Amino acid sequence: MDFYFDFASPYGYFASEKIEALAARYGRVIRWRPILLFAVLRAHGLAGPMEHPLKRAYMLADFERSAKFLGVQYRAPASFPIVTQHAARAFYLIEQAAPDLAVPFAHAVLRAYWRESRDIASPAAVAAIVSDMTPALGAAEDVLAQLQGDVAKGLLTEAINRAVAAGVFGSPFFMLDGEPFFGADRLPQLEVRMAGSPR
Amino acid sequence: MDFYFDFASPYGYFASEKIEALAARYGRVIRWRPILLFAVLRAHGLAGPMEHPLKRAYMLADFERSAKFLGVQYRAPASFPIVTQHAARAFYLIEQAAPDLAVPFAHAVLRAYWRESRDIASPAAVAAIVSDMTPALGAAEDVLAQLQGDVAKGLLTEAINRAVAAGVFGSPFFMLDGEPFFGADRLPQLEVRMAGSPR
Repeated sequence: MDFYFDFASPYGYFASEKIEALAARYGRVIRWRPILLFAVLRAHGLAGPMEHPLKRAYMLADFERSAKFLGVQYRAPASFPIVTQHAARAFYLIEQAAPDLAVPFAHAVLRAYWRESRDIASPAAVAAIVSDMTPALGAAEDVLAQLQGDVAKGLLTEAINRAVAAGVFGSPFFMLDGEPFFGADRLPQLEVRMAGSPR
Repeated sequence: MDFYFDFASPYGYFASEKIEALAARYGRVIRWRPILLFAVLRAHGLAGPMEHPLKRAYMLADFERSAKFLGVQYRAPASFPIVTQHAARAFYLIEQAAPDLAVPFAHAVLRAYWRESRDIASPAAVAAIVSDMTPALGAAEDVLAQLQGDVAKGLLTEAINRAVAAGVFGSPFFMLDGEPFFGADRLPQLEVRMAGSPR
């Protein structure tokens, strides 16, 4: 199952806190695919979910309420939304250099932002999160040095292009055996399908 | 609690099948407010949820899946979407003439369309549903005669204007003690609040 999300998406964060236990219950492997939601939406010609002030106000309140409902630790970040290309590029660099550390890195970024309101936008902020990780990622300095490089940019561009081609149009977005599920709201339906209910 | 919906919204239909039992459990009274979703969205400058072919394809599949998940009887209508101003005007006319029959009429329209793929768009189709109702609505002919009148148009326009002013931007949309909940997905959170969890 592919799990697409943007590091700056609160519903993506909520899903990231739930999806591993869910997949483990049904013996499923998750492939984490951070994307830049604005780039995916732009490729489809779609507007962002929070561009309208009315929807933005609704969603800011809904973040709090949904976090409580789902039992996920959450604090509204001081700065929102933010750019996430450095965090996403770092993810794909780490996935190549030390695959086992990519998901722990994703959790560390998401929790730094959505629990502690820490900066995750700048290359220095991303490097700080890499340095704090346990087990330490020996290649932390290398990752930081490569964040602005063509390899990192190419990896993220490819991930975004694949998401667009797969029909992703939101965060979180799950693709289970070719079937799309959009939104943290769809975790219960995702579970029904994992449990063996036919399409 | 105000319950806003469009007769042509499948998620509005799903909610209509769940909301009465939910409200009854917590001693809540529901005020049903059919609206024309396209008019509400246009007033806010928002696009319709199914205007993009990618989202439309996703949602058509999601209707089936969500109906199964929620245990609601559903068959994809032959013609979708459709205009609903005659059904909505009839609702408000009936609400004035015979208040107890307005909600049964709403159920009859929703079920005719979402279970039996019957036409609910034309004045004649709306009149047929009124005629079929038990207990019979003596004023059925009157309702039909008034569907194109200024009173009916004014009632619906007023309902739409109030929905816009209340910040409604989708179907279903619930307003519980001034707190907005958007989507059939939010029924569980609506229940948490009705059960007494503070905001």
